[in-house]
Amino acid sequence: MIKSSEAVSRLIAGLARLPGIGRKTASRLAFHILKVPREEALELAEAIRDVKDRVGFCTICNNISENDPCHICSDTQRKKNIICVVEEAMDLAALEKSEHFHGLYHVLGGRISPLDGIGPDDLKIKELLTRLTDGSVEEIVIATNPNVEGEATALYLAKLIKPLGVKITRIARGLPVGSDLEYADGMTLSRAMEGRQEIHLDSHE
Amino acid sequence: MIKSSEAVSRLIAGLARLPGIGRKTASRLAFHILKVPREEALELAEAIRDVKDRVGFCTICNNISENDPCHICSDTQRKKNIICVVEEAMDLAALEKSEHFHGLYHVLGGRISPLDGIGPDDLKIKELLTRLTDGSVEEIVIATNPNVEGEATALYLAKLIKPLGVKITRIARGLPVGSDLEYADGMTLSRAMEGRQEIHLDSHE
Repeated sequence: MIKSSEAVSRLIAGLARLPGIGRKTASRLAFHILKVPREEALELAEAIRDVKDRVGFCTICNNISENDPCHICSDTQRKKNIICVVEEAMDLAALEKSEHFHGLYHVLGGRISPLDGIGPDDLKIKELLTRLTDGSVEEIVIATNPNVEGEATALYLAKLIKPLGVKITRIARGLPVGSDLEYADGMTLSRAMEGRQEIHLDSHE
Repeated sequence: MIKSSEAVSRLIAGLARLPGIGRKTASRLAFHILKVPREEALELAEAIRDVKDRVGFCTICNNISENDPCHICSDTQRKKNIICVVEEAMDLAALEKSEHFHGLYHVLGGRISPLDGIGPDDLKIKELLTRLTDGSVEEIVIATNPNVEGEATALYLAKLIKPLGVKITRIARGLPVGSDLEYADGMTLSRAMEGRQEIHLDSHE
């Protein structure tokens, strides 16, 4: 901590509120900001302000976006009959980067986590159900994280959506590509075994 | 990365320039900033701007300060005949927190590190020598870090200051308080043995 300055203390406090940044790291970052050229620091301040001014959430899928609806919801090239449900916009970005999925998304804004006081009502679940009412959606891919809370959220959603007659799928859990069987945990190996698929030789010809 | 927004990309790029923050962490931080209430984000932006507007460097000791001279250099209660030389203002803050040293400081602004292209001319060494010209300073405590570059800087300073007839000392290197001999590295143990001090039993009576 740099005791001598009120302004520095305030900056450290502000930085320390960011996730994964403790007092020590915040001090180091504040110190760095003090040392860099004025323009570089102000650019960061401006970027923070800009993001809050210009970026909001898509009212259809809850994705982060400068426009409403977002570029995915308003893209006529994308399949409208399949919705992939993710926890956060970051997950959506990760899936988009893999360029494999061409349907729509729905960002829940978190996962059900009683320990953190997050219940179904804190997530955009009602909004998801509303999107299913007109019958145009044929499949929901639940892509919440493969951990305890993500699985619980997936199960909750599946139970809720089932009566609507929409096909519900879950992204596959298994060994990550490029990983080593030897180092995989038991749960992952069980899932990989459970989800095994037949090899169709003729499709490789 | 959140591809959809120019503003978000700029924020991620700005955050990724901070030390120890890569693209992934920057994305996570940017995403957090998007989610927090507007006021909290703007507070951080304001704190960055404020620090650049209000905080500068003390022209005497190069410490970070809102005033010039800083609160230490202008404190009449402090010993003026001893100067502790540190690499960065963060080191000064750490020493101040221990409340043991009551002299003045001199912040070099780094250490000599040829690999990083930092030579003696990039540090506030000339300014330190200027402070020694009037003969009021009797001791220089060199408190650069106890690593290769810190030691090299200490040696360089000692050679430079020696002809001026000022007493030069180096902070002790040894076992950190609360640590375990068993886990200490060889260099630290050597230094601890080298710097051993006699136990004066009568002073404990």
